[in-house]
Parts: sequence; structure tokens; C-alpha cells
Amino acid sequence: MSVLVVNGPNLDRLGKRQPDIYGATTLADIEEGLRARAGELGTEIDFFQSNCEGEILDRIHRAADEGDAVIINAGGLTHTSVVLKDALAEITDGAGYVEVHISNVHAREEFRHHSYLSAGAAGVIVGLGTYGYTAALEFLAQR
Amino acid sequence: MSVLVVNGPNLDRLGKRQPDIYGATTLADIEEGLRARAGELGTEIDFFQSNCEGEILDRIHRAADEGDAVIINAGGLTHTSVVLKDALAEITDGAGYVEVHISNVHAREEFRHHSYLSAGAAGVIVGLGTYGYTAALEFLAQR
Amino acid sequence: MSVLVVNGPNLDRLGKRQPDIYGATTLADIEEGLRARAGELGTEIDFFQSNCEGEILDRIHRAADEGDAVIINAGGLTHTSVVLKDALAEITDGAGYVEVHISNVHAREEFRHHSYLSAGAAGVIVGLGTYGYTAALEFLAQR
Amino acid sequence: MSVLVVNGPNLDRLGKRQPDIYGATTLADIEEGLRARAGELGTEIDFFQSNCEGEILDRIHRAADEGDAVIINAGGLTHTSVVLKDALAEITDGAGYVEVHISNVHAREEFRHHSYLSAGAAGVIVGLGTYGYTAALEFLAQR
Amino acid sequence: MSVLVVNGPNLDRLGKRQPDIYGATTLADIEEGLRARAGELGTEIDFFQSNCEGEILDRIHRAADEGDAVIINAGGLTHTSVVLKDALAEITDGAGYVEVHISNVHAREEFRHHSYLSAGAAGVIVGLGTYGYTAALEFLAQR
Amino acid sequence: MSVLVVNGPNLDRLGKRQPDIYGATTLADIEEGLRARAGELGTEIDFFQSNCEGEILDRIHRAADEGDAVIINAGGLTHTSVVLKDALAEITDGAGYVEVHISNVHAREEFRHHSYLSAGAAGVIVGLGTYGYTAALEFLAQR
Amino acid sequence: MSVLVVNGPNLDRLGKRQPDIYGATTLADIEEGLRARAGELGTEIDFFQSNCEGEILDRIHRAADEGDAVIINAGGLTHTSVVLKDALAEITDGAGYVEVHISNVHAREEFRHHSYLSAGAAGVIVGLGTYGYTAALEFLAQR
Amino acid sequence: MSVLVVNGPNLDRLGKRQPDIYGATTLADIEEGLRARAGELGTEIDFFQSNCEGEILDRIHRAADEGDAVIINAGGLTHTSVVLKDALAEITDGAGYVEVHISNVHAREEFRHHSYLSAGAAGVIVGLGTYGYTAALEFLAQR
Amino acid sequence: MSVLVVNGPNLDRLGKRQPDIYGATTLADIEEGLRARAGELGTEIDFFQSNCEGEILDRIHRAADEGDAVIINAGGLTHTSVVLKDALAEITDGAGYVEVHISNVHAREEFRHHSYLSAGAAGVIVGLGTYGYTAALEFLAQR
Amino acid sequence: MSVLVVNGPNLDRLGKRQPDIYGATTLADIEEGLRARAGELGTEIDFFQSNCEGEILDRIHRAADEGDAVIINAGGLTHTSVVLKDALAEITDGAGYVEVHISNVHAREEFRHHSYLSAGAAGVIVGLGTYGYTAALEFLAQR
Amino acid sequence: MSVLVVNGPNLDRLGKRQPDIYGATTLADIEEGLRARAGELGTEIDFFQSNCEGEILDRIHRAADEGDAVIINAGGLTHTSVVLKDALAEITDGAGYVEVHISNVHAREEFRHHSYLSAGAAGVIVGLGTYGYTAALEFLAQR
Amino acid sequence: MSVLVVNGPNLDRLGKRQPDIYGATTLADIEEGLRARAGELGTEIDFFQSNCEGEILDRIHRAADEGDAVIINAGGLTHTSVVLKDALAEITDGAGYVEVHISNVHAREEFRHHSYLSAGAAGVIVGLGTYGYTAALEFLAQR
Repeated sequence: MSVLVVNGPNLDRLGKRQPDIYGATTLADIEEGLRARAGELGTEIDFFQSNCEGEILDRIHRAADEGDAVIINAGGLTHTSVVLKDALAEITDGAGYVEVHISNVHAREEFRHHSYLSAGAAGVIVGLGTYGYTAALEFLAQR
Repeated sequence: MSVLVVNGPNLDRLGKRQPDIYGATTLADIEEGLRARAGELGTEIDFFQSNCEGEILDRIHRAADEGDAVIINAGGLTHTSVVLKDALAEITDGAGYVEVHISNVHAREEFRHHSYLSAGAAGVIVGLGTYGYTAALEFLAQR
Repeated sequence: MSVLVVNGPNLDRLGKRQPDIYGATTLADIEEGLRARAGELGTEIDFFQSNCEGEILDRIHRAADEGDAVIINAGGLTHTSVVLKDALAEITDGAGYVEVHISNVHAREEFRHHSYLSAGAAGVIVGLGTYGYTAALEFLAQR
Repeated sequence: MSVLVVNGPNLDRLGKRQPDIYGATTLADIEEGLRARAGELGTEIDFFQSNCEGEILDRIHRAADEGDAVIINAGGLTHTSVVLKDALAEITDGAGYVEVHISNVHAREEFRHHSYLSAGAAGVIVGLGTYGYTAALEFLAQR
Repeated sequence: MSVLVVNGPNLDRLGKRQPDIYGATTLADIEEGLRARAGELGTEIDFFQSNCEGEILDRIHRAADEGDAVIINAGGLTHTSVVLKDALAEITDGAGYVEVHISNVHAREEFRHHSYLSAGAAGVIVGLGTYGYTAALEFLAQR
Repeated sequence: MSVLVVNGPNLDRLGKRQPDIYGATTLADIEEGLRARAGELGTEIDFFQSNCEGEILDRIHRAADEGDAVIINAGGLTHTSVVLKDALAEITDGAGYVEVHISNVHAREEFRHHSYLSAGAAGVIVGLGTYGYTAALEFLAQR
Repeated sequence: MSVLVVNGPNLDRLGKRQPDIYGATTLADIEEGLRARAGELGTEIDFFQSNCEGEILDRIHRAADEGDAVIINAGGLTHTSVVLKDALAEITDGAGYVEVHISNVHAREEFRHHSYLSAGAAGVIVGLGTYGYTAALEFLAQR
Repeated sequence: MSVLVVNGPNLDRLGKRQPDIYGATTLADIEEGLRARAGELGTEIDFFQSNCEGEILDRIHRAADEGDAVIINAGGLTHTSVVLKDALAEITDGAGYVEVHISNVHAREEFRHHSYLSAGAAGVIVGLGTYGYTAALEFLAQR
Repeated sequence: MSVLVVNGPNLDRLGKRQPDIYGATTLADIEEGLRARAGELGTEIDFFQSNCEGEILDRIHRAADEGDAVIINAGGLTHTSVVLKDALAEITDGAGYVEVHISNVHAREEFRHHSYLSAGAAGVIVGLGTYGYTAALEFLAQR
Repeated sequence: MSVLVVNGPNLDRLGKRQPDIYGATTLADIEEGLRARAGELGTEIDFFQSNCEGEILDRIHRAADEGDAVIINAGGLTHTSVVLKDALAEITDGAGYVEVHISNVHAREEFRHHSYLSAGAAGVIVGLGTYGYTAALEFLAQR
Repeated sequence: MSVLVVNGPNLDRLGKRQPDIYGATTLADIEEGLRARAGELGTEIDFFQSNCEGEILDRIHRAADEGDAVIINAGGLTHTSVVLKDALAEITDGAGYVEVHISNVHAREEFRHHSYLSAGAAGVIVGLGTYGYTAALEFLAQR
Repeated sequence: MSVLVVNGPNLDRLGKRQPDIYGATTLADIEEGLRARAGELGTEIDFFQSNCEGEILDRIHRAADEGDAVIINAGGLTHTSVVLKDALAEITDGAGYVEVHISNVHAREEFRHHSYLSAGAAGVIVGLGTYGYTAALEFLAQR
């Protein structure tokens, strides 16, 4: 099995942006940890981050062509992007995807309570910090 | 007369994505058909597809400068993009544009029932499959 | 193939009512044009206009019995009539229907943005003036 | 000047239906009173009542052709009929119309607080009982 | 006691329209069954079906004059017709009426969950198929 | 009978403020006309205008004590003032009041479509210009 | 066939609570009547009343295990209980259930117009008094 | 560390109720798996299931007194129970809790998209099947 | 006179739960104080607390039978329980009840601003801490 | 301690206005009773009533300067006045205020269910008649 | 050019009320600063503050008569006052007005996000503290 | 101090797009003017315009790293972009940002009345034309 981990806009700022909400761990730290765990699980893993919605679509299209499962933390696009939902629909029909949020979006502003991505996801993990990515990987690996 | 045909995010996936909704025709097939018909009508025609909203704006700005009419299928941006609406306002004031949707958006999720683009359009064609592009071209040519 | 063209309440006023919105073409003009095009396409065509919802239902029931496709411009009933939607459901299950609006309803009052008829339609054509009827006919003929 | 007085569905029941709300006066009584007053004012007056929306549209179309002003009590259609609004738009562009309600609709159910007809009316008279028709006539006559 | 059974728009299509929802029984079958049961109960019974709202109002007005109880399946008018509600108010003040729906409207589209007629009804029977008419008759007979 | 005519905030500007909406007639003109008509009808009449909600309440309280009927054009307070509604409740229980608007509020902004005062009024007259005051007076005099 | 009749919170108060709405009949009276009719129909019948949602769930689970049909009047839980809806989903998939309300909930407060239980029910009977239980039994027996 | 696993109403039906949504695993299977994993992690674990909201509150109060962390799948109470939210507020202030749903609630009815429990939770895991409980346990153990 | 004091779910946690909102006083303290004051007023008083909605209903039914007045702090059930509202309707028709909240619910989450119980209450006391119970007792005693 | 009792618009009408809702007690009666009780409690007390929002603001500003606690029955301003809320914010930061309503506003029109003043109040007393003022005084005195 | 600076209810409390939101600057300080800057710009300037809406209307009417531009900070009336909007409409048609708020209303309660005054304003300045008045003056002076 | 001026999508069209709304000034004109004023104020200033949301995020991230204040006119992204709001949150925690709109968004379509950016801004300037940028610069420079 092969898994693509997509991080959306502003997640390159992890460890810098609002550390009281997101903690001090950087995206590089998360990648390192996941790569190690993926190795143990015998799962191929790839990472992608972009602040540009269009580039994220391109990358997901490629994942769809290759039959990858996806772990996605789409940041603020979660609440606004129909085009991302539409791109991920191909993953739903393929290997499936898990939506991850580091912070508990349900304890924040009202507009963060709705996700365009959840309905098509295999599952959603919210508020477990960076462990959420690990749990998503475990889930996809054992599936 | 000159017409620009804009296809938005995920429409490069036509023929691959959800064929039960969008059919097996690819974007290349559509272009070929329209080019042929434009030739018969004596209309210049150009095509543009991008997954990046910003690039679409750039292309529409150029069309505005050149006085082109526009046929646009903006995919999921239809329901969310005020900036696209604002860019197209220049076309409304110029040669006009027709909004096209291949599938019947009114038979799908509630959030697909609203389009930011329709109010400024000369017309809207929904659910007629790829024939919608042809009808839009005929309309603009005879106008 | 056989097509019934239904025009609903007030459309007998075409050419008289609010010509700035609907233009100077009369319903008779439209019929004449469509009849000519239907002849070219080898399609049987029939026309019906009524200001009475009940009579429109009766006519659609007959079309359902005869397996006709329908082109319908229901005027203001579009936004309010569940019984019309219910009658047309039989056409959806049969030869299908196309909903046509001469003016761009999305550029008018909010209550004109919702149509009870669109979800069951094969397609919807809005704002292309009287060409909308022609495009609907072409679509049904080639289908 | 010529005035058409239109009474919509159920108003043939005046004097019978819910006399606690509408009083004991019949439609014939109202006509008689208005005819007398119209005579004094030198105004031609005509009356029309129907329970069928389609027939009311037909009658308003004729009034539009003849340049009549209209006094209309549309009964329950007030709150639901877009086609009636559309037919009356021709009167707005012509001699104008006054909307009359015998009872105080604002003191009744919520859905009676909205009228599709008011925006296009020259004026609206609510709750003054049958005197509302007289006031409407006076207004149109002196205009 | 005398009972009028009113069936509204499209119910003449019973047995033809969407048999997966409404079943294969025709309106004539229902009438036959009810007439038999009314005979046993010693109740006079009459039937009326129309696709025209205005004709239904006329018939209900007559029932009001004659003091009849009413069983009504108003079809799609249920959700949109204030004038029907107003006509039935006279029955509420008289012998009362029962609202019947063959299918379970609460398991269908959102707009079918609201009925203008229910508040004034003696009772409402939903989803029991054609037995709903029989139960309504039994109820009115024993009342 | 005695009638108090109350004009609310900004109505001292009649003839100055937005003459395209309210016309060139001043409040003094209206008073003069009404006084003349009241004389003919044998009705005592008094006038009050204030831009201060509190003073209007005081004046209405006095009218309540004296058993006066009231004609009120509350201007913008119509849409916002619960205290005015509460003060007028005493008039509802007494000689009654008529709400008047010179312009057609239903053809203006959405927030002008709701009036806190209408439910307790004997009647409401909208859009008939300054004739609305006269009609209100006639109504109260003949009542 | 076997039928379980469930009465929810406060229905033990029938005959005591708000007799103007619910009448003087007690739950024991209803049981007696239904038992008699069930005997005639050759149907096994059992009764359960509780003010505790949890106990009602337990009882419905048992009915699901035993393949019983259910007649349920859930009282105020109708409008608020998702867990009851979820428990009844097993009955929907089994012998089915009929929802009964003694009073006409549609003529009462707004919040009583929505039922979590109706969508999954075979049918709903509202406002027919205690006859509603009988009709539900007849329906289930003949089904 | 000590963890209490609470399963709410209807979850005793796991493996029986709607197996297409919830799968064939029973609650006993889940407990067995979690007990094994807790042993490996050196975590004390306790289980509680009830269909009665009141009993669940009692059990959570005890957990609060004992400083336990909580894993909770509240079933349908998730969407309706303020008292459960209030009881869990003590756990938020203590060892924290994780909300788990076996199915993807965001892909089901609209009313299942809101949870009273999420805002106070440390995290929320949705749609990962029974693995969600394991991930919650891992998270609490490593925290 | 006899008064029943009902405390709903989680109120057994007073003094433990969120002391910043509810203070350190326990339910036993409140009972002691009220018993003393009731003695002075010559009023019989009884106390009941339960976390189970069903048990609360049972207790209120008994109070209704005995003609007791009720002081009720229903905790989170205030905002969600129609069955509690229905049970209390019998008290409204009897000796009446006062709704008490220790904290100022209007300064907390939006969903705490609505109470199903207030409309039927004789009065509501919010935010006065435990003094609210005393004031309610004084009010009922002097009534 | 010093307490200011503010009564807003129309409360000078107590005993005259809608005695079925507000009773026959006058504002003078209330003042007399409170003055007596304040004397017993050793509390200074002052009274202010005005129909003018601006004067009420001025008086509250003075109370803020003097560190007074406030008891306020703002009448209809309760539901509409942001400026009153803003003025009282200074009292919240000072000695605090209690909001009092004589009638049970929750049993009246929907718009009376929301108060701009409640969130900043120390407490709210509703429906206890004139005893509400006394309870507010007791609360402030013992605080 | 001549400019009137209007400060509405509670702004006389600047420096006293909620200094964490509004700062320690008083209205007199603001006036002094603006007078100095107006002198430099060669602009006549006048100041008006009142807690009474009616007095503010009177002052704006005078400004309209004199052709003044207006800078207005209407405090809490911003969100509630249609009569103020109506009075300012004359300024819109004249020299224009700028709406100023010292604090960032968009970072405060939801009801402060809507202003009745903004649509008619030349511009709106929010959250720039007392500098907002200066910027408004500069803008009007250079216009 | 250093200030970054960000102009979002379509603002490269200033002077071309809808000059009746935005005027004839180009972005280059604005830059020139601001650069001159920044020189006088001794403030470093930089400019950035892009039609691509992702590029804007990148630029704001750099500004956050460098501690710049920001002046932003985000065009249509104002109303739709959560990711932009999230990127700017770092500026809120740093040197702060001012939101500028050239036209009066409150006088345009409803969806332009809400801004995702305002709550985190130091201030918002709307409708003052290109002077808005200058005022923002002055404010940041003097802060």
C-alpha cells in the first residue's frame, strides 16, 4: 500500500503559527515520525505541502491515478473548498482518505465546524495533535 | 468574433472522474468538437484549463483586454469564488459570457444550487452534457 | 421522436409584457421557428400554452401517456408549483424534459433563483432568449 | 378612467366564511356600494371574481390591454402566487393597482405577513374592512 | 352523515405515476372500496378529483354549504396552497376533515414535510397506503 | 369622536427629504387638509410630531387617557420600536388606531417590510401618499 | 403476527393531564379496547409504558429480537429523541412501526411539528384521538 | 492512568443493529480488544454501557471523582444531550475525554453533524470503525 | 401550602462541578437553608434530585396529584426536554412552578438561552446564585 | 449600599395599561413598598422612570459615577436597545444590576424572549409580578 | 467646507466607560485635536453629542439644511436605528458623511457587525481609535 | 517600521475594471503615492499583488517572519478565504494589519458585507477610495 500525506495552506508554518493552538512541532518533525512508522508498517509514504489550492488538486489527481490512499489536513480550505472536495471524490472511489486536524476545530469559531471534506472521507480525526496523522496511517495500513 | 472556453479545477479529469456523473468524454474530445463547429461558424476559439484560480483570473483578464466572449465551466469554483465573479464582471461589460455545467447541478448537493457566476452571465446551460458547450458557442456566434 | 413544448402562465403575453426583459418576439414567432427546425430534424412537435396550472397538468399527463419529451417554460409556476414537479416526474421517468427560461432568472429577484422543476429535468437553459427553446430541441433530438 | 375590481379565491364566500374575521357583508353588497360610488366619481368600473388563478390571469391580461387600473383582493394567492405578481407587473407599468385586504393580515398567521403583490402595487390597504375597496377607488379616481 | 372524498392534482395518475411510491391501485379501485365500506357504515359518500385548484375550491364550498365532512388528499397542493387551507377552514368549522397521504411524506423531500392543511384538520393519516382513506372514513363515521 | 394624528421622526422633513420618495407636500399641508376634512366630518382632530420616541409615548399615553383614536405614521420607528407598540396597545384596547405610510414600504429595503405596529392596528394604509391620512380619517369617522 | 404498543413519557397521565387536549380516556381504557380488537384480528398484542427513555429503548430492542411490529406514541420524545429513532430503525428493517399521536400536533406549538420518528415509520396517524391506535392495529394486521 | 470507556444508548445492539453501517463486531469484541491493548500499555480500563442517560451521568460523575480519562461513544445522545455535555465538563477539567463514533456521522443525516460533546473533548475520532476506540486509548496513554 | 424542590441532572455535583460558575455551596447546604426558611413561612417542603429524566417525571406527576407547587432547576434538561415541559404543564394548571437557575444562563452558550420550561412557569429566576431558590419559595409562599 | 431602581418606557402606565398582564399595582405603590423594605435593610434607594431612552442613559451614567447598584425594568427597550446595554456595562463593572420583568416575557411574543440586558446582569427575575423588585433588592442587599 | 462631528449615546463616557476597549482619551480631547487639524485644513468644524436619538436627528436635520458634511460615531444606535439612517439619507444626498467607530466592532459581539448607517455613508472607518475621526476629516477636506 | 501593502485578486485591473465603482486610478498610481508618503514618514514600504491566493499566503508568511505590518486589500478573497485569515493571524500577533476597501462594500451585494479578515485586523477602512491606503499607512506609522 502507498499513502500520500497532504498538508494544505499555512501548515508550513507549524511550530511558528499560533503555537498555543498547534504546538511547537514542525511539519518536518511530523514527516520524520510518520516515515519511521510507515517503514515499520511496510507502507510507502509520500508528503506534499502547498499553500496553493491548484497545486494540491494536481497532486491529488496524481494520487488518484496511482491508487494511493490519502491523509489530508487541508487547513482552512477544509471549510471553503468545493474543488478540493471534488478532487478527493476520486480518492473516495479508490483507496480512500482520512481527514486530520491537529487542533480541536469544534472548540474554535463556528465556521470551522463544517468541513466539505468529511462526508467523502473514510474517517476524520480531530484534536489529537500530531498523533492524528499516526492514527490515520495505522488505520489505512490495517484496513 | 472570438471566444475563449475556460474550464476550471478538476475538469482535466473529465472521462476519469465520476464517469457516472460526467460521462466518458474527455476535455480533448470537447475541444476537438468545438473547434470544428467554430470553424463552420467562422468564429475564432481558444481553450484554457487550469486547476489554479489565480491562473484562470489572469486568462480572463487577457480575454477582457482582447474583447473575447467567454464560455466558462468553473467546476467547484462556481459555488465559492467571488474573485472569479469579479473577474468575469469585465466580460459582462464586454462581449458577455455563458456559464456551462455538464451535469445537472440542481439534482446534486444543496451547495451546488447556488452559483456566484450566474447573475452576471448572458445565460446558463446546465445538465445538457458536453452539448452545453456547443449550444453556448451557437448562442454567442448568432448573437 | 415527439416533443411537446409547454409554455406556462403569462407567456401568452410575450412581446407585450415587460419587453425590456423578454424582448419583442411573440409566442407565435417562437412556435414558427421551432416548427421549422423540428421539420429539419425530423422531429414531431406540438405546442401548448395555458395560464391554468390544472390544464398544464392534464396536457403533461397526456404527454406522459404518449411517451413525448417535453420542453417547458413554466413561467412563475417554476418557483412555486409542487404539483407541476409531480406531473413532470412521469416525464423524467420517460423521454425526459428540458426546462427553459428566456430571461436570466438568476439576475432577478431572489425567489426566482429556486426552481421546483430543475432537479428532475434532463437539463436547464437560462437567459439565452428564445434560442433556449431551439437548443433544447437540438439536445432532445440528438439524444 | 376605468377600474377593474378583482376578487380572488374564496371571496365568493364573503358573508359565509369565518364571519368573525370577514364580517357579514357579501361580495354583491360590496359591488353595489362601489358601483354607486364609481358613478358619483364618473369612473367606469367592472368586477371579476374567480377561484381559478388561471382565469384571474386571463382577466388581468385583458385589463392590461385596455389600460384599466385594478383593485385586487387576491385572497390566499397573495402569499403564494408568482404568476399573479407577473401578470400584475403589466398593470404596474400601466394604470397601476391597489392591493386590498378586508381583515388585518398582520394580526393573523406569519405566512400572511408576506405578499408577492405589494412591491408592484401603487398602494396597499389592510384591515379596513370593505371600506378598503372604497378608499382604493377614491385613490385611483383622484390620482 | 355525508362524506366528500377529494383527490387533488395528479391523483388521477394513481397506478401509473411512480408506482414504487404510490402502488398499482387506481383511484377507481379506491373509490370502489370506500363506497362498499360506506354502504356498510350507512354513510353517504361522494368523490371528486381535479387537477385544477379552482375547481377543488368550488367543490369544497359546496360541501361546506351541505355540511359534509371531507377526506382530502390534496397531492402537491398540500405544501403550497393557502387558498385550499382557507376553503377548508369552513369544513373545520363544520363537520371536519381528515387529511390523507398514501405515501410517507416525511420520508421524502424536505418541502413535503410541511402541510398547510394539517393545522385545521381533525386528523392526519400518512403512509398507510390506500388504507388511509378507509381509516379516515371509519373515524368520521364513528365520530 | 376625537382623533390624534401622530407623525414620528423625520416626518418634519416632508417636502425636503427625498422628495422622489415622499413628494413635495409638507406636514403643514397635510395638517391643513386633514383639519378641513375633519371639520366636514364633525371630528375633533389634533396633531403631534416629534423626533423623540419618548415624547411620542407621552403623547400617546395622553390620547389613551382621553379615549382618542390615533392615526400614526411612525417613520423609521415602525420597524424597530417595541415601546411604541406597547404604548399603542392601550389605543388598540380603546378607540383603535390606523397605521399610515406615505411611500410603499414593501417596494423598499427588506427591513421596512416588517412593522411592530401593524398587528395591533385596526388597519394599515401603505403607499397612497398623503391621501392615506385622509382615508384613515374617513375610516375612523365612519366606524 | 405480534404487536407491541409503546406509550412514552407522561402518557400514564392520560385522563388526568390536560383533558381538553387528550380527553378523559385512560391508558387502561385504550389497552382494553385494543386487546379486544387484537383478539378479533387474531393478533398477539403487548403493552409497555415508561417515563424513562432508556427503558423504552430496552423494550424496543426486545421487540426487534422477537420480530414484533410496533405501535408507538412517544409523547414529547417524538420531537427530541435521536436514540429512540435509532432503536426504532431496527423495527423499520423488521416488521415496521406506526407512529400515533392522540392530539393534532400540527395545531399545537411549532416544535411539535417535527418528529424524529416519522421518516422511519410505515405510517403516521395524528389527531384521531384513541382511534389512532385502533387504525394502526388494523393497518398492521392487514398488511 | 485509568480509562473509562462509555458506550451510550443502542450500542448494546452492535453487531445486530444496521450491520451495513456499524459492522458485525459486538461490544464484547471491542471490550476484549481494548482490554488486551490496555494491558500492553499498562493502563487500567473499565467499561460501561447503558441505554439510560441518567445512569451514564452517574457513571461519569464517579469517573470524575476518581480522576479517570474517558473514551465515549454516546450514540444518538451525542446530538441532543446537554446534560451529558455538562457531566463531561468535569472530565475536561480533569483527565480529558475522547469522543468516538464508529460510523462516519458526517456522511449521514444533517442532525448527526452536530455534537454537543466535541467542544469539550480532547479529540474526536469519526468513521474509523472499532479502531477508533483503540486510537483513542493510544492517544490517552501516550498523553 | 406544600412545595416540592426539584433539582435535575448534575445538580448533585454542586460544589464539585465548575465551582467558578456554580460556587462551593452543595445541594445539602441549599436544602438546609430552604428547610429553615420554609419552617418560618409555615410551608411544607420536600426535595428531589435525580440524574434520570424519567424519575423526575414520576416525581412531578406525584406532585401534580398532591397539588404541590414546584421549584425546579432542571439543569441541562431545561434546554432540551419536551417531556419535562409536558409533565410540568399539570403544575401550571395547579399550584404553579418557578424555574430557577443558579448561574446566569444568558451569559453562557447560545443554546442555554432557550428554555422549554419558562413559558409555563409562574416566574423565572436566573443568576442570583442559591438565593434564587429562596426568592422562589418566598414568592410561592406569599402568592 | 445604594440602589437605583430604573423603570423604562410605559411603566408609568402600570395599573392603567393591560391590567390583565401587569396587574393593578401602580409604580407609586411599588416605590412605596421598596422604600419601606430598603429602610429595613439599611439600603439607600432612589427611583427613576422615563419614557425617553436618552434620559435613562443619563441617569445610569450618574449611577455609574456614584457606584450604585441598579434594579432595572426597561420595558420594551429590553429587546431593542444596544445603547442601554452599553450604558449598563459600566454598572456590570461596578456594583452590578438585576433585570426585572413583572410579566412572564417568555409566555408572550417571540421577540420578547431575547433581552440585550441579560448577559451583563448579575441576575434576571421574570414573571414574579412586583415581588420581582423586592427579590432584586434583597439579593443586592445581601450580596 | 463645514463639517459636523456627531457623537451618539454613551460617547460622553469616553475615558470612563470600558477603557480597555475605548482607551483613556475623552471626547474633549478628541474635539481639541480635531479642531486643531480643522484649523490647519481651513475647514469649519462643529461638535455635537447627545444620548437622545431625537436630539441627534434634530441636529442632523440642521446640518442638512446648512449643507454640512458629517462625521458620525453613533455608538450603539449604529446597529438599531432606522430613523438615524433616514435622517442621514439627506446628508448622503448632500455633502456626504463618514461613519467612525473607535473600537473594532467586527471583533466584538455578532450584533455589532451590522450597521444601518454604512450603506449610505461615503466611507466607514473602524478600529483605528481616535485617529479614525482625523482620517475622516482629512478625507472630507480633500474630497 | 516596515509596511507591506498587499493587493489581492483583480486589483491589478484597477483603472480598467468597473471604473464607475473603483475609479480610474491604477495600482501603480497608488504605489507611487504611498511610496512618497512613506518616505516622508520614514517608513519602509513594500508592495505585492497577486491573483493567486497561495502566493499571497507565501508573501504574508515572509512578512510575519520579518515583523512587518500589513495593509491589505484582499478583493473578493475578503469574503471567502479562511486560509488568508489564518495567515494574517500571525500578523495580528505581530505588527498588526489594516484592512482596506476602495469601494463601500456595505453599499453592494449582501455577500460583500462579511469579511473573514476584519476580526483580526487592527482596523478597517471602507469606501474612502485610494485615500484608504494612505490613512492606513498614517495609522500604522503613528501607532
